[in-house]
Amino acid sequence: MTDTPDTRPATGKAAQGPVNRRVPDGDELERLVCDDCGFIYYENPKVVVGSVTTWQDKILLCKRAIAPRIGYWTLPAGYMELGETPDAGAAREAWEEARARIETQDLLAIYSIAHVSQVQLIYRATLTDPDIAPGPESQEVRLFDWDDIPWEDLAFPTVSWALQHYQDAIGKDIIAPATNMQHGL
Amino acid sequence: MTDTPDTRPATGKAAQGPVNRRVPDGDELERLVCDDCGFIYYENPKVVVGSVTTWQDKILLCKRAIAPRIGYWTLPAGYMELGETPDAGAAREAWEEARARIETQDLLAIYSIAHVSQVQLIYRATLTDPDIAPGPESQEVRLFDWDDIPWEDLAFPTVSWALQHYQDAIGKDIIAPATNMQHGL
Repeated sequence: MTDTPDTRPATGKAAQGPVNRRVPDGDELERLVCDDCGFIYYENPKVVVGSVTTWQDKILLCKRAIAPRIGYWTLPAGYMELGETPDAGAAREAWEEARARIETQDLLAIYSIAHVSQVQLIYRATLTDPDIAPGPESQEVRLFDWDDIPWEDLAFPTVSWALQHYQDAIGKDIIAPATNMQHGL
Repeated sequence: MTDTPDTRPATGKAAQGPVNRRVPDGDELERLVCDDCGFIYYENPKVVVGSVTTWQDKILLCKRAIAPRIGYWTLPAGYMELGETPDAGAAREAWEEARARIETQDLLAIYSIAHVSQVQLIYRATLTDPDIAPGPESQEVRLFDWDDIPWEDLAFPTVSWALQHYQDAIGKDIIAPATNMQHGL
């Protein structure tokens, strides 16, 4: 999970790609346009999918091995890919980051991080077995008792929000997904 | 609201833009790459934001003036833009398509249309006043009594699903957002 947008490094070649910002014919908003080929790059908000995944009463967290926030704990989460559903994406991320097989349940939270044009969809999920191991993007993965959650070492505010909402939602069959409006954002 | 992806027409110039599909160095998935400048086009699922908006007991629908499904009725909805929250995007779409000023409430539904890589976030909302008028993408806008909804002339399945879930949710303060899993998809 990351609150920063992906970056698109310049290539150093003569052709520049879609780097010129102007309003295409028939459009109303500025878009990034390539002056070499006319390609219009429609930038849109990105969807991050993830989960608060549990085994019995323990919560799965991953210690980040990649920037930003290397060494801090996060939920298994990442960018949704083409052709997948959000809950399938959350399951894929749990596998990639923690080698965890999960079953997703309901939508726990929807966070909008407008300044980086990101929408986060966080599900409640359970492990189908307790075998977990760090994937390439994790230094370590661990199942935490609630009282042992490293609150001071969480990677992003959304991790803390989602964990707190998970705790509030225990035992409730029907929940309204939390939003970051509840956190003043 | 549309269930089809946006299209990016070829330009006819010698340079082609990011049209070659291959796995960039350090990546795991095929991406569209421009062989002229090296630009990598990270395609991601797109977010559609919209609303079931009401005035008293009447529901706002818009008759589409644009493809696809010209002449059929839809909810005010469209692609979320950069830098906005989903509910702000839903309000913007209501203005653009129906000149409607709305206040969004809770998340009514989240639909995943994986084959076009689209996630739809549909809110419950109310008009702040009953003045509505067609925007450029609508032939007509109208406030329908429930019994007058033109079920046979709705533009997309998601419109029907959202309306039915809206009806089911009347009077409930806490709702779980509907998903298209409920509709077998």
